[in-house]
Amino acid sequence: MEIQIEKFMDETGDVASLIEWLASFGATENKGVTRLLYSEEWLSAQLAMKGEMDKEGLVTYFDSVGNLFGRLEGADSASGTILTGSHIDTVKDGGKYDGAYGVIASFLAVKKLYRIYGQPRKTIEVVSFCEEEGSRFPITFWGSRNIQGIYDLDHVKDMEDTEGIPFVEAMKKAGFGPEVYKTPARNDIDRFVEIHIEQGMVLEKNRNAIGVVSHIVGQRRYTVKVVGESDHAGTTPMSYRKDAVSTASEFISFLTNKAKGMDPHLVATVGRLNVIPNVPNVIACEVEFTLDIRHHEEVILDLFCKEIFSSFDGLAKKAGMKLEVSQWMDVKPVAMDMEMNQLARRIAEDKHIPYQDIVSGAGHDAQVFGSFCPTCLLFVPSQGGISHSPKEFTSVPDLERGIDVLSEVLYKLAY
Amino acid sequence: MEIQIEKFMDETGDVASLIEWLASFGATENKGVTRLLYSEEWLSAQLAMKGEMDKEGLVTYFDSVGNLFGRLEGADSASGTILTGSHIDTVKDGGKYDGAYGVIASFLAVKKLYRIYGQPRKTIEVVSFCEEEGSRFPITFWGSRNIQGIYDLDHVKDMEDTEGIPFVEAMKKAGFGPEVYKTPARNDIDRFVEIHIEQGMVLEKNRNAIGVVSHIVGQRRYTVKVVGESDHAGTTPMSYRKDAVSTASEFISFLTNKAKGMDPHLVATVGRLNVIPNVPNVIACEVEFTLDIRHHEEVILDLFCKEIFSSFDGLAKKAGMKLEVSQWMDVKPVAMDMEMNQLARRIAEDKHIPYQDIVSGAGHDAQVFGSFCPTCLLFVPSQGGISHSPKEFTSVPDLERGIDVLSEVLYKLAY
Repeated sequence: MEIQIEKFMDETGDVASLIEWLASFGATENKGVTRLLYSEEWLSAQLAMKGEMDKEGLVTYFDSVGNLFGRLEGADSASGTILTGSHIDTVKDGGKYDGAYGVIASFLAVKKLYRIYGQPRKTIEVVSFCEEEGSRFPITFWGSRNIQGIYDLDHVKDMEDTEGIPFVEAMKKAGFGPEVYKTPARNDIDRFVEIHIEQGMVLEKNRNAIGVVSHIVGQRRYTVKVVGESDHAGTTPMSYRKDAVSTASEFISFLTNKAKGMDPHLVATVGRLNVIPNVPNVIACEVEFTLDIRHHEEVILDLFCKEIFSSFDGLAKKAGMKLEVSQWMDVKPVAMDMEMNQLARRIAEDKHIPYQDIVSGAGHDAQVFGSFCPTCLLFVPSQGGISHSPKEFTSVPDLERGIDVLSEVLYKLAY
Repeated sequence: MEIQIEKFMDETGDVASLIEWLASFGATENKGVTRLLYSEEWLSAQLAMKGEMDKEGLVTYFDSVGNLFGRLEGADSASGTILTGSHIDTVKDGGKYDGAYGVIASFLAVKKLYRIYGQPRKTIEVVSFCEEEGSRFPITFWGSRNIQGIYDLDHVKDMEDTEGIPFVEAMKKAGFGPEVYKTPARNDIDRFVEIHIEQGMVLEKNRNAIGVVSHIVGQRRYTVKVVGESDHAGTTPMSYRKDAVSTASEFISFLTNKAKGMDPHLVATVGRLNVIPNVPNVIACEVEFTLDIRHHEEVILDLFCKEIFSSFDGLAKKAGMKLEVSQWMDVKPVAMDMEMNQLARRIAEDKHIPYQDIVSGAGHDAQVFGSFCPTCLLFVPSQGGISHSPKEFTSVPDLERGIDVLSEVLYKLAY
């Protein structure tokens, strides 16, 4: 089979040119990509992918929210569908690989299998989810959650983008809606397989080409507000101060050290921090910062959050400061399917492709599917761990090895 | 004399109404005052003060930069001038007392002395400095430094306010300039006495009514930039991070603890801090913060700065971060005159007014004069230490006690 695959790769051209081709829809000045949900660039990209799938003889269709499918009917279509793909939307000025690689890789894998092996036993569908990033409207996983029936139009009826365009208006302008296409909810999905760039530097540091994702982390996000008193930076002795910058710094130092010491998979980030009044010679009365905490075990998240907020409380009391904490995200950790993961490991092993198990610190469509059906998520390396940036890059050999393993996983599942 | 003074106070009305009256020039919606250099409000206030001084028989005049003087000629005018006063300008939406109280108190003290004792032995001049705050143009102590001959028009020839109005144009529009009035530089000033609100809470906490300022602190201001790497908050393990927020927090925690431990008069403040890119789920690549460090001894400032920057260097190296430090202010500490301070203490003691020695953590016109002639700076309490705010407040008894001590100091110096 190895020989056949290589021959096929020669015939179909390289994945790199498809990546570049897809990146031309929404290309930015900075050599990045901006493809926001329901924008013209986004629509052109979906239609272009549809064209490619049509050419290969896949039966293509949209659902009412704009998810694109390319169906390869199996001989035993009653046994459910193997779904494979990722998302077509990007962040603003994002990279060429995030989401797009998963769509292209799934397409190329299915194209290859179809050309070599013809009709599968089980139906395979390539999917290009309409939305995952939450870049235009304040909602994420719009594509995959609609397929699961978690979301419907009621969810977005009052939502607008930053320019005040209502969600439903944008959707209809792009040509979608329940009047035009069939409902996205599905109950025939048997398995979901996604391949994605890692967006971290773990594979690169370990010189592995494939990451077999064991879990997708749970995420908790908070806003922490520390309120003290604004005083003159010259006339207020240190002992009289209620300095919000100083207390927030203590919190963050404590948090970082605690996160480093607790568990190698735990990450805690203060990414946004704003100071009031933010003037050099005035002691700050208020600091508000965000807290992003991730781990793949709920019990570790519980323990860590309990410890840090109890310490924050103690430090705030000691400093005579007011502390306000509000949580605005609580995503549960999701485990990927152990059997499919074992299959992926064995395939990588057979192909002498260096691989490792890995925890996904980022959210993916696979996490939505993970709660509904056996799901497998594979990673390929991200150079320097850079993502959501025009500098996002994965080498062609890594892209190809990903498609190689994905094809074989789909082959074992569907043929 | 006590009886005479009280009688006088009854005759001349209270200081509180003069404070309110002066605050009406530039009164803001928030019940604060905005009197920026050379603005209409500022000019009205200077002219109104001139009118009050004229009424009392002082010989009033402006110099070419807009400092206002009210002169009470002494019998022995060759022996030099006792100058007393403060500044008329304010910060944006500042309080009614900062600067204004010093001008009014000096005027009321001289008015009282003149009414009671007639012509002094030495000439006394009340001064209302045109500018001290640096609120409109990027320059401070424009009034007092012109009197010392440190500044001239060359200093401001390229300066503009935030609306693009050139300094000299603003000055001429207000009616000032070398063509109209005499040069501000003086060589006849023998002593300078200023009274000001403390702008801190030391007197209030200690229940003292008068602060005799021993020193005005030296000030060093820096911008510190910590440069790391922007990475994904979910996919980057703690051990791989170069998190600028986390490293800056370590710096600030270290700094605060060091400042608290070193010397009770040392203050160190991070008042402004900005994060790049400042997004919840992205590890920050850059934090820039200001550092304001004050103490009245140069040797302590040297020692503290050396220690913290050496520690910052070490922490940055350990974290693999780049560190950039630039200093943009270096004001030397200034000592007030020991003999005049002794006089002020004795007067407060005789009058049973609770007083204490105090270090001024804020800059004042007295610090410009302190390097040129024997200078005395007295403080009255600021409620809650609040300053540069419409909430600035000093009680009438405290305002009156300040004038009482100031009058007596001027009496001893000039009569």
